[in-house]
Amino acid sequence: MHLLDSLALDIERRADAPLHRQLYDRLVDEIAAGSIKPGEKLPSTRDLARLLGVSRNTILLAFDHLISEGFLEPMTGSGTYVARDLPEQLPAKAPARINPAIKAAGSLDRSFISPSAFSNVPATLRHMRRPVPFRANFPAVDMFPIRRWAGLAATLYRELDTEAAGELLGEGDPQGYEPLRVAIAEHVGLSRGLDCGPHNVIVFAGAQHAVDLACRILLTPGEDVWCEDPGYDGIYASSIAAGANPVAVPVDEEGIVVAEGIARAPEARLVYVSPSKQFPLGMELSLERRYALLQWANAAGAWILEDDYDTEFRYSGRPRPALHALDREGRVLYFGTFSKMLFPGLRLGYAIVPDALVEAFVSARSVVGRFSPMLEQALVARFMSEGQLAAHVRRMRRLYARRQDYLLDCIARKLGRWMTAEPTATGMEVIARLADGLSGQEVAELAARRGLEILPLSALAREAEVDHLITLGFSAFSEEQMDAGCEVLRDALRECRAA
Amino acid sequence: MHLLDSLALDIERRADAPLHRQLYDRLVDEIAAGSIKPGEKLPSTRDLARLLGVSRNTILLAFDHLISEGFLEPMTGSGTYVARDLPEQLPAKAPARINPAIKAAGSLDRSFISPSAFSNVPATLRHMRRPVPFRANFPAVDMFPIRRWAGLAATLYRELDTEAAGELLGEGDPQGYEPLRVAIAEHVGLSRGLDCGPHNVIVFAGAQHAVDLACRILLTPGEDVWCEDPGYDGIYASSIAAGANPVAVPVDEEGIVVAEGIARAPEARLVYVSPSKQFPLGMELSLERRYALLQWANAAGAWILEDDYDTEFRYSGRPRPALHALDREGRVLYFGTFSKMLFPGLRLGYAIVPDALVEAFVSARSVVGRFSPMLEQALVARFMSEGQLAAHVRRMRRLYARRQDYLLDCIARKLGRWMTAEPTATGMEVIARLADGLSGQEVAELAARRGLEILPLSALAREAEVDHLITLGFSAFSEEQMDAGCEVLRDALRECRAA
Repeated sequence: MHLLDSLALDIERRADAPLHRQLYDRLVDEIAAGSIKPGEKLPSTRDLARLLGVSRNTILLAFDHLISEGFLEPMTGSGTYVARDLPEQLPAKAPARINPAIKAAGSLDRSFISPSAFSNVPATLRHMRRPVPFRANFPAVDMFPIRRWAGLAATLYRELDTEAAGELLGEGDPQGYEPLRVAIAEHVGLSRGLDCGPHNVIVFAGAQHAVDLACRILLTPGEDVWCEDPGYDGIYASSIAAGANPVAVPVDEEGIVVAEGIARAPEARLVYVSPSKQFPLGMELSLERRYALLQWANAAGAWILEDDYDTEFRYSGRPRPALHALDREGRVLYFGTFSKMLFPGLRLGYAIVPDALVEAFVSARSVVGRFSPMLEQALVARFMSEGQLAAHVRRMRRLYARRQDYLLDCIARKLGRWMTAEPTATGMEVIARLADGLSGQEVAELAARRGLEILPLSALAREAEVDHLITLGFSAFSEEQMDAGCEVLRDALRECRAA
Repeated sequence: MHLLDSLALDIERRADAPLHRQLYDRLVDEIAAGSIKPGEKLPSTRDLARLLGVSRNTILLAFDHLISEGFLEPMTGSGTYVARDLPEQLPAKAPARINPAIKAAGSLDRSFISPSAFSNVPATLRHMRRPVPFRANFPAVDMFPIRRWAGLAATLYRELDTEAAGELLGEGDPQGYEPLRVAIAEHVGLSRGLDCGPHNVIVFAGAQHAVDLACRILLTPGEDVWCEDPGYDGIYASSIAAGANPVAVPVDEEGIVVAEGIARAPEARLVYVSPSKQFPLGMELSLERRYALLQWANAAGAWILEDDYDTEFRYSGRPRPALHALDREGRVLYFGTFSKMLFPGLRLGYAIVPDALVEAFVSARSVVGRFSPMLEQALVARFMSEGQLAAHVRRMRRLYARRQDYLLDCIARKLGRWMTAEPTATGMEVIARLADGLSGQEVAELAARRGLEILPLSALAREAEVDHLITLGFSAFSEEQMDAGCEVLRDALRECRAA
């Protein structure tokens, strides 16, 4: 078995070549060098896969190539052997498939791709992340009632025999499955005070998908976009991808400083705001600012994207209705997602758009992914209409309230020397203010080295000075996890302060 | 019950107001006019929904509004009544929510939205369509093994308790779920000769989603795009949405006329081709043209989008490998979808991109919808790895072969006076050539008036003269449906020719 050992050491997970190609190259080398002899039997693909820790498909792909090129011979029922008559010419390894001009540049020459698009995508959007403490804005997916969900799915599948349900396998409405739109309109009407009908709802693959399409539809290259600072990085990315110009507008304790937005970009075509709970600082947009923003938008002919994130889990105080509810001119587009209420892997969200924009959105939605998966939409619609969504949100609200209390207590007991945290009235994370001399960036790096995830608000800031603030999520973690996380962080801070 | 009758007549499905709003307005009118009296009991929401043919949610929404404004009173266990003390002030009906400037224009003022984007979206992308004969390119969803699919789903749900599977509820890889990418790489390698690994696969919400993102990534506004004429309308829409300039390039019996493309747009940055089966005419791109296209693309630094549609169901002859298999410089991006192999409501497709573009695509994919739904991806991966996909495609190939034979026979027997159709070696529809004096547009309109769907190729043409050709799909229809459809069409043609 020395061959396997040597292979196992050599098959690194290099980013520049697929695994099956690496395995192919290695085997060609071994055969060429004579370390595997003609006629020798290779281990089974199953054993190889297990020993190398790769999928069996990877092994099969490599073997297929080697067989088609005459290096290996399959013997039915017996296994795979090194060919007795090896090809005279060894194949060129990993044929150069990349334009040499690009390859020479080391990475993709930007002149080959559209210069304005996607040049500045934040890592938070790009990398899948498991929820390690203290990941913010992540629901307790382990508490999701997956059995109930599976039961609904099974019912739905059984009903697919009927003609009406059978439509779910076919092509869907780009605007969204009608019963889901009805349920969404009702949900935002009851919970957030929106005056809208199913006609105003467009279903998307999450809120970011909707925000991105709104930018494409509403912006002309070169136009200005007000973005909160600190603020959601997805709007910066999508503005740039639409060829527009994101303008950082400061926020204070009343939310976005409208006067400053007007001073910096009076001609802006679009404003992105999180009025219910500013992302990431958490304050509510004051009523005065709401009216000022709407008044300016009406006069300027600008559109307002309202991201109503993190409002479902409220622990204290009364919610203010959405900004959308104050809009009499149809300037506000409202965005929501099921990622927090249900689970992130679902990929369903929605936009509530003014009547005048419905046609443009449906049209554009049909070009960008056509429509959302039908069975999933039907499942969510049923989960909502049966009251399961509301019940789940209620359960999670109670759980998250307890988890927040626990985290605040944990921080006070274990991390009080380095930070203080305030309770949040709504949402899934608290903000902690660091003691003098500590920077959020520094704490985040300390934490990352120990397998924790802490978001320094400076990562979401352009000009704003918020390096003394960090975010600590509580919703996804058990008390044990939070205990352990705080202790790891405490030890790290002790070490670093001692040094 | 006269109220209900009157309501039923009045509730039109107006596009400018949601149904619940219309119902609300009508009920306020009736109450104000005294035709429903204070204290009178209203029919149950269930009865109203049934009688008006709207969803019960619509009724509930209208009732909720009327209750919150004091017009109706719910009595627990007894029903809903018109309030005894009506509000003095009747509410304003349907408050003007639209900018008067827009409203006056009758429809959306284009100056309000980005002029280059989505201004020309084809109806084929926009409207959901049930498969009525002779819809092209639509699988027999009623033959989909939904029980087996549901069984796999149930297994997957049961496994979600384990930690690894639990990740499916969380955030996914923007590039796509790894086991699915492995299965796709293997599938396109074995069935289409592609030399690629899971590393080159990006999972999308269908092929059109991928094509649209490719346009955004690879095109700079103002650049030219070669589009086949006649050809796929999605590429025209996405080129325009990216600010680029689609250039119609003719096709002949060898496929796209490369020399003509070079003459018309020598500097084009992108080429869209369907080499395996030209959409919609059906010929294969000749080997000579393949080399000419690749040679030009290499020299010009252009990208080639290869849409490998309709190759899974082959009835005769040997498939030629994909164009991608000839590409040594990494200029070809290959697109595929599960909409035909599985079902359209699934919304999963993929792009195989050159190594040099992977990073850019993953980055952009994360902005445009983040990632595809995880449970769905896992389900498809398992369906593939268990061999179910291959088995289903084999079953459908046999079914579609029989259906094609039947349709050709039907056309010869019933429609021979007006058209002749040739068998197709692969795919889900045949092309019929109309007798002199008949136009495809005319036949399509005749058919549409009788509830049939026939695609005249002129709908997909810019300069090409193809009005004597129509497409007739067979894959989704039983022999009875095809019989009936041909007879309806025959009668329509007789009438029209007699006139």
